[in-house]
Amino acid sequence: MIGEVPNTEVGQEFVSRRLAHEAGVHRPLQAGICGTKVSAAESIVVSGGYKDDEDYGDVIIYTGHGGRDSSGNQVSDQSLDDSGNAALVTSYLEGLPVRVLRGAHSGSPWAPTRGYRYDGLFRVTNYGRKLGIDGFLIWQFRMEAYDGTPLPEPTQQETLPAARGSVDTGSGQSPSGNESPERVTTTVQRIVRNSAVKRQVKTWHDNRCQICHMRIEVPGGSYSEGAHIQALGSPHNGPDTTSNVLCLCPNCHVMLDAGAIVISNDLTVILGGVEQGALSTHPRHVIDMDCVRQHRERWRQD
Amino acid sequence: MIGEVPNTEVGQEFVSRRLAHEAGVHRPLQAGICGTKVSAAESIVVSGGYKDDEDYGDVIIYTGHGGRDSSGNQVSDQSLDDSGNAALVTSYLEGLPVRVLRGAHSGSPWAPTRGYRYDGLFRVTNYGRKLGIDGFLIWQFRMEAYDGTPLPEPTQQETLPAARGSVDTGSGQSPSGNESPERVTTTVQRIVRNSAVKRQVKTWHDNRCQICHMRIEVPGGSYSEGAHIQALGSPHNGPDTTSNVLCLCPNCHVMLDAGAIVISNDLTVILGGVEQGALSTHPRHVIDMDCVRQHRERWRQD
Repeated sequence: MIGEVPNTEVGQEFVSRRLAHEAGVHRPLQAGICGTKVSAAESIVVSGGYKDDEDYGDVIIYTGHGGRDSSGNQVSDQSLDDSGNAALVTSYLEGLPVRVLRGAHSGSPWAPTRGYRYDGLFRVTNYGRKLGIDGFLIWQFRMEAYDGTPLPEPTQQETLPAARGSVDTGSGQSPSGNESPERVTTTVQRIVRNSAVKRQVKTWHDNRCQICHMRIEVPGGSYSEGAHIQALGSPHNGPDTTSNVLCLCPNCHVMLDAGAIVISNDLTVILGGVEQGALSTHPRHVIDMDCVRQHRERWRQD
Repeated sequence: MIGEVPNTEVGQEFVSRRLAHEAGVHRPLQAGICGTKVSAAESIVVSGGYKDDEDYGDVIIYTGHGGRDSSGNQVSDQSLDDSGNAALVTSYLEGLPVRVLRGAHSGSPWAPTRGYRYDGLFRVTNYGRKLGIDGFLIWQFRMEAYDGTPLPEPTQQETLPAARGSVDTGSGQSPSGNESPERVTTTVQRIVRNSAVKRQVKTWHDNRCQICHMRIEVPGGSYSEGAHIQALGSPHNGPDTTSNVLCLCPNCHVMLDAGAIVISNDLTVILGGVEQGALSTHPRHVIDMDCVRQHRERWRQD
């Protein structure tokens, strides 16, 4: 289950992994990451087992799974073929929330003093590979708490490293992490939202763009966006259904939304008034031709 | 000036256009849109002059400028070459806020009863062309109030059309606008933020992608994204400077962020380990090679 689980609040404590398992908050009894490449990461446990981890409260630099011996030393490189690591890549690509449990350990002022604690939903905003402390390649995932998630009470009264660093959030702090915040004026240029409807369409097309047929491949996965044909909300009031959604690469999505691309009644793609070829289709993906026509009408040249 | 102006609060009233001009809230004395294609739209006045307008409080369907006679009838098609209309397209493409003033008129329960009122910042979320009531083509822009902007007090006690319609916001109402909200579960898959630093880099490159050299053209403008090379915030702590930003198309931006593309020390683009050609440059755009190297190190294959 992705996202919040029933009957569990942020801050709720669990004496043991088994109790967290029974609550459905983190289902594996031992593994630190719950999820697969296909399903994305439902939840992770942060408990100091990986010495390359960094914890800033609302930002966690989380080391991937694998390559450790029984003493906790890294003895080989990590891989994105690892199921848990691949799951976190999917969460990054799809923008899905990940439940975070912190476990007691001395390495972080944000960890609970004993047992485990559910600290809310985080999203994976970044990932990459680096040479870890022990000299092997590790994967790391930057986790950021959702806006509004309350910070836990830190257990140590020392100067904490700046939460969030100098992220381009509009309330930024300077890169050195000092106290005087420099207001970085940012605006949101583009927001891409996901949903169950869009994920279904992207699954049918395996992230391949129906207009230009490319698939964006990145380490650990591939990326595409669900795009409504007839826009939702006033004045177009398109339905939020798979028949009104296409699987597109980001470039074609921008062009469809702003009318650089329209689609004809026989599903031919038209770019700048010139026919480009057929929209790719999938047997289970029925497309609503009323939506296609409404969208095309919005961009009439005559 | 884009965004809020000093000494003016949401809800502030102005007896006349001249007083709004003097406050800097809406600088033209007659025109409904303030702005140009290059500068984007600073502000608009919504006062019932265009019969195709629709007002839902936190969503306004705003008709573009042009093609009307002195009686207010549409007598010719509107064009995106019109400076004000082009300005709103730029605001859409760049994600910039637009100040909205409502003027008194009987056609909207959200309008003030007299004079003008500053109703806060809106963003352009959509635009398109349609056949207006008078039978000519008009451009319309969907304006959405920023989260947290207070709704004005409506002047009529009647059933108001549903604000926001069935937009994919996570708190959606059904498309017919009835009272029982259907919770649409959405997540943010991707957020692209803009900033003065990014806009500078995009201006230097005229929205042409430095990696693949394409420029996305849409009616009224072109689109690109500013992409940090070395990620901001922990753990990479890249600087928020033009030397750490590239002008990219959305596809190349996704690939750069997720390591499908890296850049060599001589500014060669490397995709999937294969050299693709040179990154395009601009004489005023100095690129920080430390940032390029740090980014490349994140995605080492060995």
